[in-house]
Amino acid sequence: MNWAEQISRDLEAVRKEKPLVHNITNYVVMNTTANTLLALGASPVMAHALEEVEEMAELSRALVLNIGTLSPLWVAAMYKAARAAEKKNVPIVVDPVGAGATRYRTLTAQALLSRYKVNVLRGNASEILAVHGGDFQTKGVDAAHSVEQARVSARELAKKHGIVVAVTGPEDYVTDGSRVARIQNGHALLGRITGSGCAASAVTGAFCAVDSDFFAASVGALVAFGIAGELAAEGNPGPGTFQARLFDMLDALKGSDVQRLAKVTAGD
Amino acid sequence: MNWAEQISRDLEAVRKEKPLVHNITNYVVMNTTANTLLALGASPVMAHALEEVEEMAELSRALVLNIGTLSPLWVAAMYKAARAAEKKNVPIVVDPVGAGATRYRTLTAQALLSRYKVNVLRGNASEILAVHGGDFQTKGVDAAHSVEQARVSARELAKKHGIVVAVTGPEDYVTDGSRVARIQNGHALLGRITGSGCAASAVTGAFCAVDSDFFAASVGALVAFGIAGELAAEGNPGPGTFQARLFDMLDALKGSDVQRLAKVTAGD
Amino acid sequence: MNWAEQISRDLEAVRKEKPLVHNITNYVVMNTTANTLLALGASPVMAHALEEVEEMAELSRALVLNIGTLSPLWVAAMYKAARAAEKKNVPIVVDPVGAGATRYRTLTAQALLSRYKVNVLRGNASEILAVHGGDFQTKGVDAAHSVEQARVSARELAKKHGIVVAVTGPEDYVTDGSRVARIQNGHALLGRITGSGCAASAVTGAFCAVDSDFFAASVGALVAFGIAGELAAEGNPGPGTFQARLFDMLDALKGSDVQRLAKVTAGD
Repeated sequence: MNWAEQISRDLEAVRKEKPLVHNITNYVVMNTTANTLLALGASPVMAHALEEVEEMAELSRALVLNIGTLSPLWVAAMYKAARAAEKKNVPIVVDPVGAGATRYRTLTAQALLSRYKVNVLRGNASEILAVHGGDFQTKGVDAAHSVEQARVSARELAKKHGIVVAVTGPEDYVTDGSRVARIQNGHALLGRITGSGCAASAVTGAFCAVDSDFFAASVGALVAFGIAGELAAEGNPGPGTFQARLFDMLDALKGSDVQRLAKVTAGD
Repeated sequence: MNWAEQISRDLEAVRKEKPLVHNITNYVVMNTTANTLLALGASPVMAHALEEVEEMAELSRALVLNIGTLSPLWVAAMYKAARAAEKKNVPIVVDPVGAGATRYRTLTAQALLSRYKVNVLRGNASEILAVHGGDFQTKGVDAAHSVEQARVSARELAKKHGIVVAVTGPEDYVTDGSRVARIQNGHALLGRITGSGCAASAVTGAFCAVDSDFFAASVGALVAFGIAGELAAEGNPGPGTFQARLFDMLDALKGSDVQRLAKVTAGD
Repeated sequence: MNWAEQISRDLEAVRKEKPLVHNITNYVVMNTTANTLLALGASPVMAHALEEVEEMAELSRALVLNIGTLSPLWVAAMYKAARAAEKKNVPIVVDPVGAGATRYRTLTAQALLSRYKVNVLRGNASEILAVHGGDFQTKGVDAAHSVEQARVSARELAKKHGIVVAVTGPEDYVTDGSRVARIQNGHALLGRITGSGCAASAVTGAFCAVDSDFFAASVGALVAFGIAGELAAEGNPGPGTFQARLFDMLDALKGSDVQRLAKVTAGD
């Protein structure tokens, strides 16, 4: 596959079709997630009430579930939205923020995968290991493991649930159980602002909305987001300036940037 | 009326009196709404617990109710705060975010107007049409209709409820049922960041706090906010830089900017 | 004590140890609080579900409780997290946002101090007076009193509860009941963005995580945060640009900046 062409095509489709992406996500990143999707060219919506999640999910072209500040009512809303989405074949992306830090998060992430037809799971190495059943406790929401350590878990989760698993970190690892891609895009400054992982999941939702090959969509989303991060990091700004520039670059990102900067390799 | 003079006077009053504006609003925009009000010169407060909304509303000089991420407890808090506000003649602004996207949003917005002495309703064209009873489903929280299409609904809603209705879009349309103003201020970049409509509603609350002619206050708020957007858009920045500059310009906005840039016409 | 040396040492420790700081805080500032802690070098986590707050608090090196948008379930979570934290000797910082504005806030702040082994209380003058039992109603979340007026209340609260009390404003006043420090760092622009007080409390949590002398840690946190504010204010930017630069400067802050700019005096 010519990755750069594929990614440019998906990016263009997002901007042209402006797919509605329904997010049930955490309080910390709601604003930046919405701005990420808007800057990219998609149309974000946040809705979590049991009274409306089904309607909203059915209306949307992707559903992104993020457990970063979960609580029982929100988890119930995620379940209800997921059921509605799978009935309408709306792709579902799960971001298991903090899985491994508390049992509640680990169990909720696992329940989402077991009960619903999730399409993509995107997390850091510790989160993916925890969802796979690792017996450890991570330190909060930051990764305590390397992407390399999560490789086997990612592949097994992908096979078990028939999903794409994306492990993000200094190098990203994406697999659907058979195909594997490694991505060297991104920048260390992404780890110095809150919600960059959550933003990557939202971008993945937007790409899945326009590309039914969810493996390709996930790779494309991470490459595009990573390149925007690289462009935003030019001149090595502080994290506050970097955050503003990240939105600027998601908006400005061109096919030629993807052509020039995409670093994807097949691998295992 | 000399709009520029009127608006400059209200803007100065906001900065001098720093009115407390009580917001029961959505999670996505709480931070940017607070910063919008602070940059303008007002004093924002967010409070949604049933245990305190009455006290807070009574203490405030405007109440802004925004249903962007509504849920039953928050709607109950809006009702309770609205009752307290109307008893004390605290002006109430309603922002029906996403009305038309789900029945829950449409019905909640309609209930607020029917049950309480709301003073201003500000929304995009699809939201105003939905609140008026349009039989359609919008795509999420973005407008799927033109301001022109919502003109009749706006006027009828204004007459029926004795309120000011402001329909915002490329051109804004404001009416109290008899008077009409059209505003050509603003910039397309406002549509590329989340919460710019919500921010306009909050600014409307601040203007209503210092100007009991709510039609004039609503026009003034939209002109002032639109001009700040135009100034922030100078040099055509990306959306992240634009967001930061928008706060800068709300803070820096001068009477002479209003004099120079206000574009208001009477009309129908 | 050589304050500059002490503060530089604590700052270095935060960056080296990256302590996990558990925040149960308000919706308005969650994003900026997380970014403040990340920019400083700490590791933020937000979690409020009764199902997980104990685990998260036990995992953390500081717990910051902020009542800015409180509600019964969140208050219950704060109590549960506080109980877990005190059992594990995890330092607890309380930010009584809006105490004095509503009875609910005042009573909740007082309950936290009475029932749990809180270590630091940081608020503005009106909040500290309200927590101490002042019979008045403040205007929202902004201070209606001078730091000078809150001096006696701060000292009495410190003695009564065996805690450090930090009153912040144009000049900060910090006391543990016997020792007193006054801090002249900071900048008026910090009052033009939302959540700067909340951010100061979070930074206090991070300093308490690495320095068990909570009086010294509190002074150090306010000095470091104030200096970052001064550096961010250079060139007198608007509030939006200032906010982005504040994160940049928390990241860039050096021991030599502290040496050059710290303004702490012992006093009473």
